[in-house]
Amino acid sequence: MPKRTFKIIYRVSWVDTDAAGVVHFSNYFRFFEKAEEEFYQHLGFSFATSEVTKDLWFPRVEAFSQYKRPAKYNDLLEIELTVEEVKEKTVKYGFSIFKKETSELLASGYLVIVAADKKLGKATRIPKEIVEKLKPYTK
Amino acid sequence: MPKRTFKIIYRVSWVDTDAAGVVHFSNYFRFFEKAEEEFYQHLGFSFATSEVTKDLWFPRVEAFSQYKRPAKYNDLLEIELTVEEVKEKTVKYGFSIFKKETSELLASGYLVIVAADKKLGKATRIPKEIVEKLKPYTK
Amino acid sequence: MPKRTFKIIYRVSWVDTDAAGVVHFSNYFRFFEKAEEEFYQHLGFSFATSEVTKDLWFPRVEAFSQYKRPAKYNDLLEIELTVEEVKEKTVKYGFSIFKKETSELLASGYLVIVAADKKLGKATRIPKEIVEKLKPYTK
Amino acid sequence: MPKRTFKIIYRVSWVDTDAAGVVHFSNYFRFFEKAEEEFYQHLGFSFATSEVTKDLWFPRVEAFSQYKRPAKYNDLLEIELTVEEVKEKTVKYGFSIFKKETSELLASGYLVIVAADKKLGKATRIPKEIVEKLKPYTK
Repeated sequence: MPKRTFKIIYRVSWVDTDAAGVVHFSNYFRFFEKAEEEFYQHLGFSFATSEVTKDLWFPRVEAFSQYKRPAKYNDLLEIELTVEEVKEKTVKYGFSIFKKETSELLASGYLVIVAADKKLGKATRIPKEIVEKLKPYTK
Repeated sequence: MPKRTFKIIYRVSWVDTDAAGVVHFSNYFRFFEKAEEEFYQHLGFSFATSEVTKDLWFPRVEAFSQYKRPAKYNDLLEIELTVEEVKEKTVKYGFSIFKKETSELLASGYLVIVAADKKLGKATRIPKEIVEKLKPYTK
Repeated sequence: MPKRTFKIIYRVSWVDTDAAGVVHFSNYFRFFEKAEEEFYQHLGFSFATSEVTKDLWFPRVEAFSQYKRPAKYNDLLEIELTVEEVKEKTVKYGFSIFKKETSELLASGYLVIVAADKKLGKATRIPKEIVEKLKPYTK
Repeated sequence: MPKRTFKIIYRVSWVDTDAAGVVHFSNYFRFFEKAEEEFYQHLGFSFATSEVTKDLWFPRVEAFSQYKRPAKYNDLLEIELTVEEVKEKTVKYGFSIFKKETSELLASGYLVIVAADKKLGKATRIPKEIVEKLKPYTK
């Protein structure tokens, strides 16, 4: 059974491109994170402003991307997020970016994030409320 | 008598460019700020980490740029800062960006910054120590 | 009579912010441009990919912004575009950014853009088709 | 025997940071690329403007980073580049980012780049002149 996914649509801006006429490779990581942000929004919280997350940061500990085909200015992208793995203190999200018009896969990758206590500055458990909300996406 | 100026050298990175093959207009403001940051460094403090500035932010209240000629990837830029005006709570910096190889003026503009108390979240006097350090540049 | 305006909604991303906890001042220019891009989309063309614009760039010749109140992570912004002035070769767009929840004005400014012939690399007339489409917004 | 490395120094700018008060994870990829750009400069060419590379792009096919400790505003970073592997059409560069003051490792990762013919839009051999220049770094 395929995993339950979360998707957003994003239109490439001029500032996202570089002199090769395509989206700069670093910006795909920003697109990944934008999907993550909207995913939290969709789940009903925000990683800086919600009661449950207000004492936490969610720094990234690993980031990876593979590039298949370039995205260009004005392309409509479909950014798909999957929850790859939930551990006590970390979550691994997978991402795939498709060109909406043609359904071509442009890039895929992942982010591993860790829950960190703002005051102690060290890794901590992901709050239960969040783990619960991620569950429907983990199988 | 010409004003005393402060200059930095910056080489244009690939990520600074856009699909027109030139530096994206928003990045000139980042170049302005980089000159400002190195200016503070040169004066012997840093606007977030020094004793005298640790309770302050320096938000920008106005930003302006005019674009004459495009900067391209790998161009060596000379970014010149002048102190245009020091008031009780604000400083206006002027900037000119030249292509080093040819001395052509590529862009010029200004930033108006205000001293803001981090806790009160409102405008405050610029610390005397900073005003003193700016003086040699104001005439 | 108030001018006819065009509006987009944008949610502030984490990457838009800086260590002061607010949107970096340079990013407001990127928000302005995003509204401009979606405006063209709304008018039925795109400034790099449409038949009528394919031989043109639209470099910016002036950019200005005033900052009133900071935008923060996850804020929903309303970015309003007005057509301030259409000349033979240039267009001046005005922008106002509001916090949607409170209708507070956060920033306002303008961009002056020029039509430029890609091959000749110099200013040229704005195509009639575009001027026609801008007309309903200019009075 | 340790590999021959290439190093640059970079001071973290305000715009590199995010609301957590640390460098945004996507910017480490930009720091990697900046080291790569200065490496080419050091080798005597530039990947867009030199005779030997003028018909080529060097798109990235893979990007990875691991984050150990956060970099902050004004930190002086040492970015170290190593040539991990040179194949017919691709090069893998390794990167390590240290905080200069303490020699702490902040992040490490890699970029795999491919030579691509601008006109054909497909992978091609890396020019011999470049392979030759990379050799002293590959053992």
